[in-house]
Parts: sequence; C-alpha cells; structure tokens
Amino acid sequence: MAQELFPDGIRAVNIGVAEFALPPRAHGATVLDLDWRPPAEADPALGLLVARLEDDAEGEIGGQVAAANRAAVARILEARPVLTAIRTAAEVLPGLGARTILHAGPPIAWARMCGPMRGAAVGAILYEGWAASAEAATLLCEQGEIAFAPCHHYGAVGPMAGILSPSMPVAVVENAGAGNRAFATLNEGLGKVLRFGAYGSEVLERLRWMAETLAPALGAALAAHGPVDLKALTAQALLMGDECHNRNVASTSLFTRLIAPALVRTAPTAVAARILEFLEGNNHFYLNLSMAACKAALDAAHDIPHSTVVTAMARNGVEVGIRMSGTGAAWFTAPALVPQGLFFPGYGPDDANPDLGDSAITETMGIGAFAMAAAPAIARFIGGSPEDGLRYTREMYGITLARNGDFGIPALGFTGTPTAIDARRVVDSGVTPVINTGVAHREAGIGQIGAGVIRAPLACFTQALSALGRQSGLVP
Amino acid sequence: MAQELFPDGIRAVNIGVAEFALPPRAHGATVLDLDWRPPAEADPALGLLVARLEDDAEGEIGGQVAAANRAAVARILEARPVLTAIRTAAEVLPGLGARTILHAGPPIAWARMCGPMRGAAVGAILYEGWAASAEAATLLCEQGEIAFAPCHHYGAVGPMAGILSPSMPVAVVENAGAGNRAFATLNEGLGKVLRFGAYGSEVLERLRWMAETLAPALGAALAAHGPVDLKALTAQALLMGDECHNRNVASTSLFTRLIAPALVRTAPTAVAARILEFLEGNNHFYLNLSMAACKAALDAAHDIPHSTVVTAMARNGVEVGIRMSGTGAAWFTAPALVPQGLFFPGYGPDDANPDLGDSAITETMGIGAFAMAAAPAIARFIGGSPEDGLRYTREMYGITLARNGDFGIPALGFTGTPTAIDARRVVDSGVTPVINTGVAHREAGIGQIGAGVIRAPLACFTQALSALGRQSGLVP
Repeated sequence: MAQELFPDGIRAVNIGVAEFALPPRAHGATVLDLDWRPPAEADPALGLLVARLEDDAEGEIGGQVAAANRAAVARILEARPVLTAIRTAAEVLPGLGARTILHAGPPIAWARMCGPMRGAAVGAILYEGWAASAEAATLLCEQGEIAFAPCHHYGAVGPMAGILSPSMPVAVVENAGAGNRAFATLNEGLGKVLRFGAYGSEVLERLRWMAETLAPALGAALAAHGPVDLKALTAQALLMGDECHNRNVASTSLFTRLIAPALVRTAPTAVAARILEFLEGNNHFYLNLSMAACKAALDAAHDIPHSTVVTAMARNGVEVGIRMSGTGAAWFTAPALVPQGLFFPGYGPDDANPDLGDSAITETMGIGAFAMAAAPAIARFIGGSPEDGLRYTREMYGITLARNGDFGIPALGFTGTPTAIDARRVVDSGVTPVINTGVAHREAGIGQIGAGVIRAPLACFTQALSALGRQSGLVP
Repeated sequence: MAQELFPDGIRAVNIGVAEFALPPRAHGATVLDLDWRPPAEADPALGLLVARLEDDAEGEIGGQVAAANRAAVARILEARPVLTAIRTAAEVLPGLGARTILHAGPPIAWARMCGPMRGAAVGAILYEGWAASAEAATLLCEQGEIAFAPCHHYGAVGPMAGILSPSMPVAVVENAGAGNRAFATLNEGLGKVLRFGAYGSEVLERLRWMAETLAPALGAALAAHGPVDLKALTAQALLMGDECHNRNVASTSLFTRLIAPALVRTAPTAVAARILEFLEGNNHFYLNLSMAACKAALDAAHDIPHSTVVTAMARNGVEVGIRMSGTGAAWFTAPALVPQGLFFPGYGPDDANPDLGDSAITETMGIGAFAMAAAPAIARFIGGSPEDGLRYTREMYGITLARNGDFGIPALGFTGTPTAIDARRVVDSGVTPVINTGVAHREAGIGQIGAGVIRAPLACFTQALSALGRQSGLVP
C-alpha cells in the first residue's frame, strides 16, 4: 500500500526540519522532503487570530470576514476604469491645499525622505515657482513651509518618488462600475526625470511642455475620441507580453494607435507630431494610466468593514506601507529594502535606493509581478527567466482570493490573473506579495540604475491583521 | 540492467505497428510504444535518394548539398529587410507587362482558378479600367486578353488571392544584406476586400483611396522617417504575441507608432487622421510587410545549386506549390486542401475554399505557424491551445536547419525560430511544414469565413528532391 501512495520507492516523508530525514536515510530509506513551515511565523497568538478570522462557523467573525471579502472581490472584478480626461491636479484632486506636495508611499516627513524624493520635491517647488533655487526650495521644506502628504490620500498614485504638485497635469480615470475616480501624473519617459529626483532645467522644461502642450492636446483628443477603456486595453496588453508595470510596450503602442487619429484632428500639426514622437520614445507612457486604473478599481473595494483584502501597497523609499479594506485609512508599515535584480552597467546594490513608488498598486490589483507569467520578455529587464515568471504568478494564486477572468494569461491557458490579496493568506503562509520595480539611485537626480523584483514585508500584513483583530475585539 | 534503461517497469519497446505489442502485453509485460515510421514514406528509391543527398563522404553529393545549404542558411539569417518606399507596381516590378495580373501561388490559368481568385481578378480589371462591368471583365479573362502570372515570378507576394495589377501600390522592401528587393500589396483590412474575391464599389473605392491617398502619404512619411527595419520590428512583435502571419496586432501597433510622427509632419491633417484611423482599424496591416520582408530574405537564398532549402511555399486555391533553392524556377505542386480550424458563425468546411495565398512565405521564413509558440493568444482565432503552439514550433525544429537568433521565442527561453526548411528532412521524416492561414469562402466576394492550420503536402517535397536527384544525375 505504501508503495502505491509513494511511488519511486519513497518510504518516508519528512515535514519541516531537513535534518530529521538523516537517520532514516542513513538506514537506506528513500525520504521525500516536504518544505513545510508552521503557519503565521509559528507565533501562537497570531496563528490563533488568523484561525479566528478564517472561522466562519455560526456566530464567529470569519463569516463576516468572508462576506466582506466577497464584496471586495466583486468590486475589484466589476471595476471598469476608463480614462476620461487630462486635468490639472489642483482642479480635480479633492481638497488639495495650495502649498501641498504629494508623494509616493505611506506618510513621511521631509526630514526622513530619501534622496530621490527630496530631489523631486525640490523640482516640484521650482516648477511651481515657490522658490527660485534648489537651496531656497530645500529651505522651504526644512522650515515646514510645504505640506507633504501621500498621493494615496487624494485618490492619486505616482511612480517612484511620486511627486505631484498642484499645477501638474493628471490623468483622470473614472471607475464606470462604482463611480469613483483616481488620478496619476503623466509619465515623463526615462533618463533625467523628476520621479527619479532630477530637477535640472531639462526636467523642468519637459514638465512645462507636458502641462502646457501635452496635457491640453491629449485632453482635447480624449474629448473627441471619448473615454478610453483601460480595462480592455490592459487585458489586450497582457496578451501581448506586458504586465503593465515594468513592461508597457504593447499597452503604450495600443494607446498611441487608439488616440492618434483624434489627436491629429484636434491638435495643431506640430503639436500632434511632437506628442506622437514623445509617445514613440516612451515605452512606459502607459504605466501611469495602468496605475490609475488599478487605483480606481481597488479604491472601490476599500473601507468594507472586516475585509482582509489589501487595497494598496506603496513605498516611500524608506518604508513600505499597505492598506487593508477593513482597516480604513490606517497604513501598516515596515522598512523598505533594496530590490534584487539587474543593475545598469556601472551601478550595483550599494548605489540603490530602497524600494520606492506607488506603482505596486499594479501588483495589488493582480497585474505587474503577479502577472509575470504573461510577460516572459521582462526577464531580460529584471533578471531571471520566463520560468520564474510562471512561478511567481502561480505562487500568488496562493495568497489571493480570485482570478480575474478579464485578464487572461496566455501561457497559463488564459487563466485569470491572481486578484485580491488576502492578508490572512499572506500571514498564514508566510508567502509575501512579489513586486516588479525600477531601482532608483539613492542620490537625487541620477535616475534609474536598474530594475528588479522585491517582496512586500510580512510585518505589514501581520500588523494589519492585528489591527483588525483589535477592531473586532479578538485581541486586546 | 533493463530496469535502469527502462524505468517504470517497462520490459519491452514496440517500434511501429501498434498490434505487435499485444502479445507481450497479454502476458503481463509493460510495453512502451514508439511512434516510428520508416523514412521517405517507405519508398526505397526515395529513401536511397535522401540518403545520397545526405551522404557527405568524400566525392559524394551530400557534401555539396551541405555546403549549399550552409550558404542558403547564412543568406536567410543575414538578411536585413527594410521598408524603403511605397510605389506603384508598374514602376518597380521588373518587366511587368501592361495587361498582366499577378496572383498568389504557383502558376494557374483562368479556367482553373478558384472563386475568390476569379473575383479578385475581375475586381482588378474593373479597378484598372480595362472593362466596365464584371461580365466584360470575365469575358476578357475567358478570351485570353489578360496575362496571368504568379506574384512570386516578379519578386512579389500577396495574401489570399494575391491579385496585384499594374497600378496598385506596393511596399518596396530592400534586403540591406544582399541588395535584392521584394514587394507586396498593402493590406486592405477585413470584411469585403479584394483578396477574398470581393469587387463591389466599396472594395474598388478603398483600392482607389489606397492608391491615391494612402500610398503617396505613407511613401512621403517613409521618405521623411527613413527606412523601417522590418527585421527588428518582427523580432519585437514576436516578443509581443504576434507570429506575423495570422496575428499582427503588436507589429501593426509598433509600425503605426513608429511612422505616425513623420506621417503627421508630411501629410495634410485630414489625410494623416484618416490613415491613422485606417491603421487603427486594421490589425493585419503589418501582414503584407511581414510577407515582403520574408520574401526578400528567402529570395537571397534562392538559386544556390544543390541546396535543398525551401525558398517559397504558396497556394493558388487549387494547388500548393513550393520552390527549392537548388532547383531554380521550378514549382513542385500538389492539390490544395481545406484548412482545419475555427469557422465564423454560420460557416463550415463545406463553404471553405482550399488553401490560398502567398502568406505561407512567413512559414518558409520560420515565423507564422513555425513561431506559434510565440503567439499563444492565436489559439482563440485558429483553434487549439497554447500547448499546440509549443508543439508545432518544436516539431518544426525537426525539419529546419537553423534557429534564427534574432527571432527569439519567449516561451522557449528565447530560442530562435525554426529556420530554413530542408526538403530532405521533410521527406525523410514525413513531417510536413505547418501553415497558419485564413479561410476564404469558396465563392468570390463573401470573404473570410474562418482561420486555421494546414500542412504543406509531402508530395511537393518528394518532387523537389526527385528533381534535384535528376539534375545531379542521381536518378534517371
């Protein structure tokens, strides 16, 4: 009988500590090692909390959690983010103050900001005309004259430093499902750009061109064309090797091809040509639209009491923070680490800033690294092999509650992307969300020095569950 | 010892006829069945010929064949097809006569042409103004007033009916490697189009717009932009789910994005907008450019004495024909069959025209169905699964001489596409080249009714080898 259960002559299975298999092996038995770890980091209190949150027996809280999560999943899957307009941040971001600068990740004060974020903030101050020099801009920050807040607090998202100031243009994405809106800056391209902390004249000139020329022209083209269905566009791009975080070639090409006729009809020739050139030269233009689409979908699932679905993961270069649907506005943070990946020639891990940017909103939505199986060519950009991509996506099915049928992955027989991260599953399994990311130089203004993969820290998820436990009276 | 060689308790291997395994199985032995067939269709004379063509011992012909094939492979791999211009066929096709109409596939007379080809020929005659009605055009054809010849005889290729008349515009593709040129019509889009045999007023109007507006504007844009590197574009598209025969979404989007700025700068606004709309609405625009690029590469490998490399596969809707490098201008033909695949609602195999079009030039080059592993999403269009795609590509490695390192397939760890079909390997193995194809209705003008997969007939390859054998004095 044992031989039927365990083929290939296996006579014993060893669970956990590898050394336990040594004695039977020494006696000639073939032992199968099973990589098992106790749940919830072997913390009894945490394990008990997870068990309570999962227990949906009559009168137990798990039933409420399950129902809340079903609602959250439905709202994520039913979201229909459409790009409706390009507007100035001050016009559309609800309650954005005058001298306010938004940044990526969870809240952070100027004194603790990393180099690229400080550089980008200085650039935004110069761009806004609040100071005439970098020194004067720095002084304003040091003297507390600038209010800093996370983009996420205003329904917005920004890649890398994520710096967003009132007169910058933003893409307006409406969730035609739930009616909520989300915003993102427009992507500047690669090289010396604000989001990596550069603030030289070429950076500021490009930002002005984007505000004065690109934004109104793209807005007019959108008005003529009608709203662009970002869900359909992302779905198509996932069939074309994009994961819509670190690879956006297909989505940017599809978007350009879609909007070009209206752009040509509405903009002066020279403007249309210059914008089409800009789009041709920027393979990441769609990234910010992808991020806003994800934000719009996830915000619709936020603030559902008892839900353990993660609705944001974001990094400010010092800390990684997550938000969970059932714990409202709270951020649960842990120190940000340096991504593993490929560095551009001349750079290495010592040059790298810790993990930075709101772009992990894509993984929170189930694309980005969660859809790595859809983007085999990305291996050449972030390291690893196409097989790693399949492995990442399969692993993420273990910590998510749904598969997004609208986002089929060809290499997995069109199985949907792993969607709705359940903090219970993360804590229970110790498997943390994987995130694709660019790597910024730790000094402001040098720019991108690599790309790679990182994990969201487990501590964020244990804190979130503990907070929910306290809220629910399960833990003191 | 036997148990080490054959794990899983296998005690015997049965080669060939399945029934031979029954007696040992009846006695309880585990028998592994090996799907083996005798080489060269078990034809002793053919088998001997293949053996002689493969024997590269001192003084044997196989050495000459091997050297010729190495040269052919090098010319295919070194080809650098670039799109340089859009011109009128009469201007650039060498020696194209006045009342000549080119068609897809090997030579065929009017009397034997299939419905879609006849319809397209009638359309071309109306378009050229050689007749005022379909009846009059048909009469011209019946009376022998029109000279018909294969596109391939003029360095050109055309999808489906492949009808090309003197005043139609063609894409001019130069092989920057060898200096030769190839041509293809511009793709009309789907629906009622000439290449499926439709010749109504909307079809002719579109053709006139393409000649009078699209072609000069695209030509001017190309002149302003500079030549477009089609090898690089195809390579990029293969990373994005195209196989550049039946799926051209990525390549068309990349091409549009590339040429749009120059188009906007050189064409009047309304023209540029209309062209960008046309490109936005035609996911197959790149097909014809892909075909011309393949033709340019393969023509460079044609006419190398003794080479058994296949340089063209083409279908006229009645017969499939191939050309082999070492046998010059000769076509080796066999009856065309109906493709296996998915039919549009309301249609089935009985409505289908047998295999049609020059587009199998893509498979001859090692893309199209040969690169199906790169295009998992195509399964939804032609039937089958992404696994079938991997299987097709792997199978084609068995009948080709090289892997094209410039055309990496992500799902196969960036292994190059299977390149340079060796007629010896086809005949030896009985494995025939797989071809992706659209399916035309057998009546003119109804259009595409499905898409699927078909195999080039083995008889074409046995004939080609026999001809080479005769040429070389190996067979009488």
